[in-house]
Amino acid sequence: MKTPKYKVPESFDMPDRQWPSRTLTDSPVWCSVDLRDGNQALPDPMTPDQKREYFKMLCDIGFKHIEVGFPSASQDDFDFFRGLIEEDRVPEDVFIMGLTQCRSHLIERTFEAFKGVKQGIVHAYIATSDLHMKQVFGMDRQDTIETAVAATRQIRELADAMPESDIRYEFSPEEFTDTDPEFCLELCKAVYDAWGKATPEKPLILNLPATVERRPPNHYADMIEWFCSRFPNRDRVQISLHSHNDQGMAVAATELALMAGADRVEGTLFGHGERTGNVDLVTVVGNLFSRGIETGLDFSNMEKVVESVERLTGMPVYYRQPYAGEYAFTAFSGSHQDAINKGMHRLDKASEIFGMRWKVPYLHIDPADLGRSFERLIRINSQSGKGGIAWVLEQEYGVHIPKAMQPELREEVQRYSEEVSRELSSEEVYKIFEEKFLRPEGPYELAGYWPRPDDNDPTFIHGEVKILVNGEAKTSVADGNGPISAFVNAVRELAGIEFGVDDYHEQAIGKGADAQALAYVPLKLKDNGVIFGVGSDSNIDQAAVRAIIAGLNRIEGQQK
Amino acid sequence: MKTPKYKVPESFDMPDRQWPSRTLTDSPVWCSVDLRDGNQALPDPMTPDQKREYFKMLCDIGFKHIEVGFPSASQDDFDFFRGLIEEDRVPEDVFIMGLTQCRSHLIERTFEAFKGVKQGIVHAYIATSDLHMKQVFGMDRQDTIETAVAATRQIRELADAMPESDIRYEFSPEEFTDTDPEFCLELCKAVYDAWGKATPEKPLILNLPATVERRPPNHYADMIEWFCSRFPNRDRVQISLHSHNDQGMAVAATELALMAGADRVEGTLFGHGERTGNVDLVTVVGNLFSRGIETGLDFSNMEKVVESVERLTGMPVYYRQPYAGEYAFTAFSGSHQDAINKGMHRLDKASEIFGMRWKVPYLHIDPADLGRSFERLIRINSQSGKGGIAWVLEQEYGVHIPKAMQPELREEVQRYSEEVSRELSSEEVYKIFEEKFLRPEGPYELAGYWPRPDDNDPTFIHGEVKILVNGEAKTSVADGNGPISAFVNAVRELAGIEFGVDDYHEQAIGKGADAQALAYVPLKLKDNGVIFGVGSDSNIDQAAVRAIIAGLNRIEGQQK
Repeated sequence: MKTPKYKVPESFDMPDRQWPSRTLTDSPVWCSVDLRDGNQALPDPMTPDQKREYFKMLCDIGFKHIEVGFPSASQDDFDFFRGLIEEDRVPEDVFIMGLTQCRSHLIERTFEAFKGVKQGIVHAYIATSDLHMKQVFGMDRQDTIETAVAATRQIRELADAMPESDIRYEFSPEEFTDTDPEFCLELCKAVYDAWGKATPEKPLILNLPATVERRPPNHYADMIEWFCSRFPNRDRVQISLHSHNDQGMAVAATELALMAGADRVEGTLFGHGERTGNVDLVTVVGNLFSRGIETGLDFSNMEKVVESVERLTGMPVYYRQPYAGEYAFTAFSGSHQDAINKGMHRLDKASEIFGMRWKVPYLHIDPADLGRSFERLIRINSQSGKGGIAWVLEQEYGVHIPKAMQPELREEVQRYSEEVSRELSSEEVYKIFEEKFLRPEGPYELAGYWPRPDDNDPTFIHGEVKILVNGEAKTSVADGNGPISAFVNAVRELAGIEFGVDDYHEQAIGKGADAQALAYVPLKLKDNGVIFGVGSDSNIDQAAVRAIIAGLNRIEGQQK
Repeated sequence: MKTPKYKVPESFDMPDRQWPSRTLTDSPVWCSVDLRDGNQALPDPMTPDQKREYFKMLCDIGFKHIEVGFPSASQDDFDFFRGLIEEDRVPEDVFIMGLTQCRSHLIERTFEAFKGVKQGIVHAYIATSDLHMKQVFGMDRQDTIETAVAATRQIRELADAMPESDIRYEFSPEEFTDTDPEFCLELCKAVYDAWGKATPEKPLILNLPATVERRPPNHYADMIEWFCSRFPNRDRVQISLHSHNDQGMAVAATELALMAGADRVEGTLFGHGERTGNVDLVTVVGNLFSRGIETGLDFSNMEKVVESVERLTGMPVYYRQPYAGEYAFTAFSGSHQDAINKGMHRLDKASEIFGMRWKVPYLHIDPADLGRSFERLIRINSQSGKGGIAWVLEQEYGVHIPKAMQPELREEVQRYSEEVSRELSSEEVYKIFEEKFLRPEGPYELAGYWPRPDDNDPTFIHGEVKILVNGEAKTSVADGNGPISAFVNAVRELAGIEFGVDDYHEQAIGKGADAQALAYVPLKLKDNGVIFGVGSDSNIDQAAVRAIIAGLNRIEGQQK
């Protein structure tokens, strides 16, 4: 018989398994690996400035363990590590963590990065699965144990030499879920002995990763329970989970493995990470929160977290992402909307009937706890997402706000709705768009633009621009290889503002002779900031030119 | 003490639970609810044409149960249902399913929709949770049983009156996971008796939905095992799952509940559906496939399925979506790429060591089985996604292909790479873009365009167009309220092609005096088809105008 291509992974004979009858009641320790596992899997990894902002956000949310890089593998990571320490950016109660392989010169370099840290975790990993040991590295089990023990001793020595710092140790056998459990237990015991410093207060962290999701989540739980129940000195180790989402079950694997006895969870916000990503901590935390468990993490302003992560990672958060996606609490069906309305109006009865204050059809959690309200889609308030605002303008006015402009519009809408502190109608949203982008107040006004093509080369423009600056007419020749670039050349001089024009978008509203063009033009400033202006005209060039004037007025408005 | 806002959901006392030690080895029956639950939660629900195409795709993939609508609730759904039957679009072995409430006039209307069907499933649901019964409908348990039994009897009578059709019955107590199990069991027994026609060959379908994911997945499995082990005539009912993803664990809930004894799974492709969506069938099916289980569904051309679903639903498939996302098999880290390479080159050894032909680091499944290859990001072949192609052009040439144009470009790339049947270099991809979009062969050539603004109203254009048609010069006045619309007016006449111009996109390549504008212009044809042309020029209007000429040449090329 031919060897099969795939096999059902072997399951565990565990007649005594306990986890299926357990219930989670406490929160684990959370560890963010956004800046390492997450960042390395972004199409455009973050710049140091972006990483600093991300790190601060993680601290503000409440993470106490934050893996910030692989300092021995890249100079950027090393420098970032040093910066955090030297610029004193690490809060008192936060441990920063650095990854290293079990190799002597990399460990030394790692400790150079840690110099002066108040609280740090050195995180060493080694390949333990037959797949990695044999197919990739050509090592055997004895080699692996010796290498891990030697690395652990070296880390202990270097940590002992830094008595002013609180250096903890995390060890990861990779990939745990594809490793012979008996071998893994033996290896981890040897590492525990070599470390020799674990106490209940300062436990050794044993991180048991599902580096690739190769098994159903109940197997992960079985393996964790098996390991926890056999490891001696269980109170001196913290069992840590690290799961990936290749089979779409990383959240469940994490929950079941916590029921099986684990103490700590590594993951990323919205599940960034290699391939299908790491486990999404926002969902795991949201789940525990929805069951009344105190997690120690603050997602009460979810929109802000979404906005920051999207901006810093360059990756969108998906529409249907639990707790955070644009549609996570959207009832599209009218009958769902009605049921929710009824449920919301009878919340006082819910306490009586169900013994909990929140029990509503179709909403297992109160969106307000995440700073979101149950919006019918056309409702906009200060918590509304940029997608919702764009949606309203599109649905009601046929205006397609380009994605790049949406954050700027959202700011204006938010400012207004915070002023009036109530929900906005779609008319009001349109009025903001009109007043702030289409016809913003300011010193500049277009009096006329005649882009005349050169008689020999219609590509080249010898035009004429008339603008009013605070009511005073100014005229200039507009030369350039295109109507917009000629206009920009002329106006840059007349207004005395250094700016360029980025890719822009145009749309037609209406049909035929009545059609109007809308142009959305991003003005790029000297400091690389971008400000959008919008222009409307039956003529497409005139629309773009009006958009530029609108943008200049917006720039003046912001400099006040 | 104040009532808590949230509570840990009550768990089940099941000392005899069996599912944690079971292993899935067989495939369930699959039921797609894309056209109902999925479609109702799209921002832009599908048109009848789109639904017909989607239905055909589902049949081609291999679904045998397909819920196609709620015919008594909307005329559109009713007409669509009728169309499928009258136009003979339902394959021999496929059951189409229609949803109805347990109300007499709705059931009658449902049967009108079913008239003449070969094989159909009438799917009735009723609210059974205290939350829905009490807070929304004001019913008690006795009312609910009576209503469900009466509805079932009516359905039986109407089905008996259609002896030429094979009408099955599905019943859903909503939301099962929030309902007292004893009550649910009593209700389902009463419905079973009222139906009275269930046999092992034609079982009653009892669909037990987790309409909202309020519980961890092990609870769903417990409830399903509890129900399965207590229902009499177990061989005459098919226990069906229907889960939603509010806690991000719908896939796991489905797998564990299958281990607990369920026979059938309802869900949607890529998890569209209310809020966070229904369970994603692509992931569940992929998981079973990756364990060597024959699923009866064919996802061997995943890119095609992704392309169709994205186009028909208007919703993107997320980058990190298991099995289907752009990044699902992308190794961003170089060390991962290397390990994969080594593993791929030692696959012959894998059979020996692991007893399976596929065992590779970081890839639990062979992407080739889904029609995808392990691409380093810059590799493009005939299976490459439109995102990958756009990515290459952006990374290597700074060309931003608009999303709406990507499918058209992908077709051209695919055609070429199938011809040469090998991977393409990025130069080749750029050459295709250039030859097919920027400078396509064809009868039209621009000889010159002078858009001269009116002296009084620069908004209005009195221009002049010169084009060559098969080498012969033609000239026309170009009047219109904008340079592009004036050009379109003139050229429409000169070329004798009816077309309009949709929203288009421009970008600048290069900086300052050397900057070139690229315009991507969609030409909209009389039959609503859209064809893109691309133009490049230092002058932005001339770029758009050249794009229109390129588009016209593409149109001529396709009509041959």
